[in-house]
Amino acid sequence: MSGPKVQLLLTGNELMTGDIVDSNSAMMAQVLKDIGLSINRKVTVADDLALLVDEITYMANTSDILIINGGLGPTVDDLTAQALALSIGEELSQHPEALAHLTKWCQQRGTELNAPNLKQAILPHGCQIVANKNGSAVGFSVRFKECDIYCTPGVPHELKVMLKEQIIPVISTGLPQGLITDITRLQVFGIGESSLQKIINEKLPDWPEEIELGFRAGMPLLEVKLTIKNKQGLMLKSQWKEELINALGDHVIAEIHGKPKSLAEHVINQLQQNNLKITTAESCTGGLIASKLTEISGSSAVFEAGFVTYSNQMKTAMLDVPESILKQEGAVSEAVVIAMAKGSLTKSSADLTIAVSGIAGPNGGSNDKPVGTVWLAWGSMDNIKTQCLLLPYNRVQFQQFVAAIGLDLLRRYQNKLNTIPNYIVERAFPDK
Amino acid sequence: MSGPKVQLLLTGNELMTGDIVDSNSAMMAQVLKDIGLSINRKVTVADDLALLVDEITYMANTSDILIINGGLGPTVDDLTAQALALSIGEELSQHPEALAHLTKWCQQRGTELNAPNLKQAILPHGCQIVANKNGSAVGFSVRFKECDIYCTPGVPHELKVMLKEQIIPVISTGLPQGLITDITRLQVFGIGESSLQKIINEKLPDWPEEIELGFRAGMPLLEVKLTIKNKQGLMLKSQWKEELINALGDHVIAEIHGKPKSLAEHVINQLQQNNLKITTAESCTGGLIASKLTEISGSSAVFEAGFVTYSNQMKTAMLDVPESILKQEGAVSEAVVIAMAKGSLTKSSADLTIAVSGIAGPNGGSNDKPVGTVWLAWGSMDNIKTQCLLLPYNRVQFQQFVAAIGLDLLRRYQNKLNTIPNYIVERAFPDK
Repeated sequence: MSGPKVQLLLTGNELMTGDIVDSNSAMMAQVLKDIGLSINRKVTVADDLALLVDEITYMANTSDILIINGGLGPTVDDLTAQALALSIGEELSQHPEALAHLTKWCQQRGTELNAPNLKQAILPHGCQIVANKNGSAVGFSVRFKECDIYCTPGVPHELKVMLKEQIIPVISTGLPQGLITDITRLQVFGIGESSLQKIINEKLPDWPEEIELGFRAGMPLLEVKLTIKNKQGLMLKSQWKEELINALGDHVIAEIHGKPKSLAEHVINQLQQNNLKITTAESCTGGLIASKLTEISGSSAVFEAGFVTYSNQMKTAMLDVPESILKQEGAVSEAVVIAMAKGSLTKSSADLTIAVSGIAGPNGGSNDKPVGTVWLAWGSMDNIKTQCLLLPYNRVQFQQFVAAIGLDLLRRYQNKLNTIPNYIVERAFPDK
Repeated sequence: MSGPKVQLLLTGNELMTGDIVDSNSAMMAQVLKDIGLSINRKVTVADDLALLVDEITYMANTSDILIINGGLGPTVDDLTAQALALSIGEELSQHPEALAHLTKWCQQRGTELNAPNLKQAILPHGCQIVANKNGSAVGFSVRFKECDIYCTPGVPHELKVMLKEQIIPVISTGLPQGLITDITRLQVFGIGESSLQKIINEKLPDWPEEIELGFRAGMPLLEVKLTIKNKQGLMLKSQWKEELINALGDHVIAEIHGKPKSLAEHVINQLQQNNLKITTAESCTGGLIASKLTEISGSSAVFEAGFVTYSNQMKTAMLDVPESILKQEGAVSEAVVIAMAKGSLTKSSADLTIAVSGIAGPNGGSNDKPVGTVWLAWGSMDNIKTQCLLLPYNRVQFQQFVAAIGLDLLRRYQNKLNTIPNYIVERAFPDK
């Protein structure tokens, strides 16, 4: 059973110039999702009367619900009421209920009801008022050609309250019974989108079409989303979620409920539960791992110190890395990261550590150790593990990815996932 | 004189569900504005083939330039190539140039060119490839019915580089003559948008309307932009730029040419020029300042080590901060940051240092030292300066802002700006 078609029309010059990022539509999508509705199509135009009339006319003909956002203000560039009136072939007239709201609004603020304010009471004839508790501009709605059209304010706070308290209750009473939206989200690390798709194609060729699969590339985590929209899908859910988790193995970090946790948050939580303390010994990441850990509230209970030993000399001075090893093996070597790891545990009396040394580039590479090479050592004094990776990233991406891998290795270590993971390095990160 | 009509088509289920906020289109608007173009209309739809074909067909008929964003990935929900092929009536076929890019991309990463990857080389017959330096998905363009259509990746970082380096140069060569756009950008720190506006209103009340003033809030730097669109403005430019720089004083970091430098980059460049070495002693920022410095290529010549001393005990163990001072004054105090600064210079033999200790929250505050308090000490052994600030931010914002202030203080110190700046703290950062 499918729900009504919902479209969104956003208006405002500031949305077209890039001066602001539109967060209203994401919020509206979330609120509509709560009652099982999804937005089908979204159009954004500047404050231009002809454009607005065209869009409203087309959208009213192709949707069951049309939400118009913005253009309700007192200034000359606020054109929504006028555009809607033209689109539906009604006159504009002063609405008594809107006028009463404006009068009260101004009275409460001790201001005069001026001409720009009065404009906000001039609405398409026959429209219904939608109350705005938080602003001077009332919302209004009309039904035109089988489409319910709601005009809402652009101010996020006013919109949110109007939507939740006024519009959603009305829409939801009109919805067909049995509309289901069930979403499961998995957090995944160390594998890219195309490898993920390949694993699913190969291991789960019979993936049921009732469960829609989606991916979202994050920084550095990937999110896999299972969306179910009917009862058959719901019955299949737990089986296929399990199959998927098995197929992806220890690349799956967690199921996401609410806001996703960062890798550092997972690590800090594990440390708190295990009553362990951690330290860091960083060369190529230059303090990034320590800063990711200390970003987490409560980290002071499990993190006391980190060593940023960028030069060879300071690896010896701060962590007692023997000069002979640095000379023989070079700073980017297994022996050096082991010595850094042990030194950091000795100097800090932490239980666990992560040590990294690598070549972030763009300079400093050689044939033996090209730019992108990194050695990692992690674990406790009696159980240090190591891994070497070659990462095809630019300097900043390399540092970000090495920090993420370092944190993931600590997560795996504490989870007793003792295999050395095969990080599948596939694509650059999105910018933050 | 008016430029070509530009429309934007964004595709992606994640844009419709509210899971992410669309920041790409604001970025695109900014980049287009730099060559004097504005976006006329913007449509966003889910990954739905029929919808995409409808939109592309309509938009190609009503615009001169159509930029399609998203849907170039390797997974089944990436439909842009297919939709474009249907819209313009071309077959899909494997594009040799795209295949070469993918092959090279995978080779560089030591991964196999798999079937999902190969899908990214299946493009509308006859299209032109638009290079993607940072991702596996190439862009592509076609000319159809007097409209230039560009298909671009949804990953912000890939999109931005492709737009600036590949697409904008092509578009701008086709623009009508006489469209003047002269833009001057200033990098500003330590002052918010509304304080900036107030300073300009008060000190420069006669600001000429030929020079449009714009602000862009960054993280943590602010950008002030002077846009000129006619010859009168061009003649007024140098005078008013100078007036503005004078009015803003030492909050102005630099004029931006090309990619803006980060604060850390300014500091590293100064250190290189002055032949000085730097170290860091961080408590509340947990390694963030060190990581910002080492993000900069070439930092290894001027940065040897950083000390992340989160606990009191480790401040003493690593930096010789006297226990007595910690006990008497508390960790967040002028005496402690001075001792941290001196300790870091002694232990590292660096010339300059920055030391910070503060209460990032959400816990750990007191009446005397509420959450948001931070002490900073910086300078050389014989000239240590200090400052205390109270910053109204959440934990992560606090850490980011303290790191930025720390770097700015080092910039000012090296520039011999000896006044302690009055950081005007006004608004929370935009979310990342």
